[in-house]
Amino acid sequence: MTEASTAPDRPQTLSASTPCRSEDVPSWDLETDVLIVGLGIAGASAALEAAAAGSDVVVLERASAGGGASAESGGLIYLGGGTPVQKACGFEDSCEEMFKYLMAAGGPSDESKVRLYCENSLEHYDWLVGLGLEFKHSFYAEKTTSPETDDGLCYSGNETAYPFSELAKPAPRGHKPKVEGDGGRLIMDKLLAAVEAGPARVIGDALVETLVRSDDGRVIGAVARVDNRLQYIRARQGVVLAAGGFIMNKEMLARHAPALLKINYPNGTDGDDGRGIRMGVAVGGTAIHMDAGFVTTPFYPPASHLKGILVNEQGQRFINEDAYHGRSGHAILHGQGGNAYLIVDTEIYGKTIAFHQKAAVEDSIEDLEAALKLPPASLVHTVEYYNRHAANGEDPLFHKAEAYLRPLTAAPFAAVDCRNSNAIFAGFTFGGLDTLPTGEVLDSEGEVVAGLYAAGRNSAGLPRWGGGYSSGMSLGGSSFFGRMAGKTAAAAGRR
Amino acid sequence: MTEASTAPDRPQTLSASTPCRSEDVPSWDLETDVLIVGLGIAGASAALEAAAAGSDVVVLERASAGGGASAESGGLIYLGGGTPVQKACGFEDSCEEMFKYLMAAGGPSDESKVRLYCENSLEHYDWLVGLGLEFKHSFYAEKTTSPETDDGLCYSGNETAYPFSELAKPAPRGHKPKVEGDGGRLIMDKLLAAVEAGPARVIGDALVETLVRSDDGRVIGAVARVDNRLQYIRARQGVVLAAGGFIMNKEMLARHAPALLKINYPNGTDGDDGRGIRMGVAVGGTAIHMDAGFVTTPFYPPASHLKGILVNEQGQRFINEDAYHGRSGHAILHGQGGNAYLIVDTEIYGKTIAFHQKAAVEDSIEDLEAALKLPPASLVHTVEYYNRHAANGEDPLFHKAEAYLRPLTAAPFAAVDCRNSNAIFAGFTFGGLDTLPTGEVLDSEGEVVAGLYAAGRNSAGLPRWGGGYSSGMSLGGSSFFGRMAGKTAAAAGRR
Repeated sequence: MTEASTAPDRPQTLSASTPCRSEDVPSWDLETDVLIVGLGIAGASAALEAAAAGSDVVVLERASAGGGASAESGGLIYLGGGTPVQKACGFEDSCEEMFKYLMAAGGPSDESKVRLYCENSLEHYDWLVGLGLEFKHSFYAEKTTSPETDDGLCYSGNETAYPFSELAKPAPRGHKPKVEGDGGRLIMDKLLAAVEAGPARVIGDALVETLVRSDDGRVIGAVARVDNRLQYIRARQGVVLAAGGFIMNKEMLARHAPALLKINYPNGTDGDDGRGIRMGVAVGGTAIHMDAGFVTTPFYPPASHLKGILVNEQGQRFINEDAYHGRSGHAILHGQGGNAYLIVDTEIYGKTIAFHQKAAVEDSIEDLEAALKLPPASLVHTVEYYNRHAANGEDPLFHKAEAYLRPLTAAPFAAVDCRNSNAIFAGFTFGGLDTLPTGEVLDSEGEVVAGLYAAGRNSAGLPRWGGGYSSGMSLGGSSFFGRMAGKTAAAAGRR
Repeated sequence: MTEASTAPDRPQTLSASTPCRSEDVPSWDLETDVLIVGLGIAGASAALEAAAAGSDVVVLERASAGGGASAESGGLIYLGGGTPVQKACGFEDSCEEMFKYLMAAGGPSDESKVRLYCENSLEHYDWLVGLGLEFKHSFYAEKTTSPETDDGLCYSGNETAYPFSELAKPAPRGHKPKVEGDGGRLIMDKLLAAVEAGPARVIGDALVETLVRSDDGRVIGAVARVDNRLQYIRARQGVVLAAGGFIMNKEMLARHAPALLKINYPNGTDGDDGRGIRMGVAVGGTAIHMDAGFVTTPFYPPASHLKGILVNEQGQRFINEDAYHGRSGHAILHGQGGNAYLIVDTEIYGKTIAFHQKAAVEDSIEDLEAALKLPPASLVHTVEYYNRHAANGEDPLFHKAEAYLRPLTAAPFAAVDCRNSNAIFAGFTFGGLDTLPTGEVLDSEGEVVAGLYAAGRNSAGLPRWGGGYSSGMSLGGSSFFGRMAGKTAAAAGRR
C-alpha cells in the first residue's frame, strides 16, 4: 500500500468531471506560476514562452517523455506571407492571401485567430528557426501527403484545388524541417531540448486527475498522480491545458463525434483521450465543434492517382480528385456513407501508402462496373463523360486542375477500394475548449474562466472542418497558440 | 427601482454559466419538491407525472403562458407497436419493427432510450388519450409533411423509403389528434389544462437565471426572475430542465452547429435560446450531438413533386426523392452545399407550402440545363437515365419507390429552386444534455449530476440525426421522456 491509499485526506481516484475544491487541498506539494498539462507541441511552446516571460513553469506529462502526437506526425508546419523558404523557391505570398485561404479552409473559422496567426506567421517562422529548426530552401513539387525528402516547402492542402484556388491566390505553405521522412520527431526533439535547457521543470509519468478550483470559480492548480501518489500543485498565474484531442476515447467519440468512430487508424497517442477537454469543461469551459475532425483514406501518392476518378456507389463522381486527401476523405466518410472507389487505368495505377486493395480489375469499364455491382451503365457514362472532357483539358463537373486531366483508356482498369469497410481511414479530432486567441478559455456565456488556458487539440484552434484541412495547420496552430497561451498566463497576476 | 436592485444580497443579473452557491442564497422564497423549468410538452408531461406521484411541483415558464414550440408544431406524435389507430386502419406493427426503424432513424441512437420508448408506446398512447386527446381511426394516405385533415394516422418519416424500407417493416406511426390543420396547439391545450387542473403550481413570466448548487455539487434549486425580482426557489427532490433547444441563439449555433446557421426559418419560440442547456452544462452536465438538427426545404406537398428529381449543381441526382423532406433537406444542406433544384414536368408541378420559386421554366431539358448553367449534357443525361428506368418502374441509382417513378416528358419543364440562398430552410436543433432514459443528467465522465434532470430539447433525446428524422419523434420523445424525468425526480429522496 502506498501512502496515498491509507491517508483519508488523499483520495485514491479523482474524477476529471469533479474539480477539487481549494478547501479540499490537504496541502500544496508544489507551487509554481504557470502549470502546463501536456508536453506535445502546444505544451512545449507554452512552456518556452511562459518561462521566457519570467514565470516559474511546471509541465506535467502523463507519458514518460514529451512529444505526444506531434512527435509522430509528418512534421509539416503551415506558414506563409512570404517566408524565406517561399521567397527562395520563387513563390509570392502575402498575409492577406494566407488569411483568405485559411478562412475558407477552416469552415466555421475563428476570424480573430486566423488573423493573428497570419499576421505573425513570419515571426513564428523565425521563432522556430531560433529553436534550431532548419528549413531547406527547396520545393517539393509532387503532390503528396507528406514529402519523403528533406525539402523545405510543399503544397500541403487545397490551395491549388477548386474552389480554394479561386478564393485565394495559391502559394505553398507546408514547411518541413530538413530531415528525410517524417519531421514531427525532429520538431519535438528541438522543442523538448529547448524546454530542457530552460528553467521550466518537466515532470513525467504525471497524469493530471482533475483541476483545483477556488471558491470564486478560479482555477488555481491541479491534482496529479505522480509515482502513484496524488500531488496537489498550485498554479499562481494559471493552468494551461495542452493534453491533446480525444480520438482514442471511443466513449467521447460516441457522445460528440459519432461519425469519427468510423476512423479505423486513429492518429494519436494513448494519451489522446480528451481528459484535458473534460477537465476544462468541468470547471466551466465550453467545448465547441466537437463533431469535427480530420479523416483520410490516402489514395495518393502516387500522384498519378489524382488522374483517376473517385466514384460513389451510384457510379457518380462527387469531388475534384486533386483536392487534399483530407477533403476527399471527408467527402467519402460524411457525404458518401464511407463508400468510394478510385477508378484508374493501368498507366496511372500504383501502390498507395495505405496499401489499398483492388476491389476489381477488368479489361473494360463495362466489366469493371459489373464487377463492382454498380448501377447499369452508370460507371460507363461517368468515365465516358469524364474522358470526353478530360481530352480537352476540362472537368465541367468538379473543375479538377488540368494537370490531372487525362482520359482513362489504358486497359486493364482497376477500382482501388476506398470503402471504409475495407480501407484504412486515418484521422483525429478537431473539437476542444473554446478559447480566445490569447488562450483564455471561455464559458458557455462567452466569459473567461479565470486561471484557465488551453491550446493544441485541447482547444478548438485553426482547423475546425475536415473539408478544408491542410497539413501543417495542427503543428502550426498548436505551436503558435501554445505560445500565446504561455505568454498570456505569464502576464496574469499571481494569486 | 425595484427592491431587488437595492438589496446588495440580491444581484441584478446572474449568468447562466455561473451556478449560484447554496451559501449565496439569501433565503428561499419558495420551496417545492420538484422544480420544472419550461412548460412545453416535456415540462408539462414531467409536471403531470411528478404531481401524480405525490410530489409538490412548481413549474417556471419564461413566457406568460405555456406551450412553447410544441404548441406551434404540426402535432404529430410518433407511436407504434399496434396502437388502436394502427389496428383500426389495418396496419400491422410491432414493438420490434418500430425499434428497428427508430434505431436506423436516430443515427447515433441511444439504444436504451429507443427500447424503452418502443416498449411503452401503447401505454403512452393511452396516457395521451387519458388527457382527452382523441385520435380519429382514419388514415391519411397522401405523402405530406403534416396532414391538413383531422385524420389520426399517417406516414410521417422514411418508413417506406429506401433504405429504411428494407431495414424495418414499414408502418405508419404519425399520430395526430383530431383537428384540422396543425395539431400542436390542441395537444398543448389538453396538457396545460391537465396541469392547471392538478396540484402543480405554474408561475409564468418567470425566467430562470441560473441553478443553485450545494457544496457537494448537488442541484438544489434555481434562481428565477419573477416580476423583475430574483426569487430563490428550493427543489427538495430535483430540478427538471425542459426549456427547449437553441435554434434562436445564433451565438450558440456558431459555436456548436455552424451548419444550422443556414436555417433561415427557425422552428421555435424566442425562448429557444439554449439557456436550459447552458445552465445544465454550468453544473457539470455534458451536452452532446450539439451539431445535429432538423432541416427542411419542403418541396412537397404536392405529393406529385416526389415524381420529380432533385439534382445538385453538377446536374446529378443525389437521393431518392420519396425520402422524408427532412432527409432531403439534410442531404441538400450538408451534402450539396445547400444547392439543389427539383426538376418537374408540367403534369406534376404544383405550388409548395414553402412557396418555392421557379429558377427556370423551359420547353426542353436541354434548355433547362442551359438556363440553370449546369455542366453541358449533365441534366440531359440525368433525365434520360432516370426516364429510361422509370418507364420500367425502376430507380437503379437511389431506389425511389415505384409509385413515384414516371418519366418526365410533359413539357414545359421547371426547376423548383431549392437553393438555400433562395428558398425557405426551416429547422431546429437536436443537441442537448446527455441523459439516462430516466432523465438523469450525465457529466463528462458519464456520472449522474445529483438533483438534475432534463427532457425535451434540453436533452439529447430520440432524434439525433437530421438524415433520419420522422415527424412526431420530437413531441413523442419529449412527452414520454418528460414523463420519465418527472417520475424519476418524484422518486428521489427529499433534501
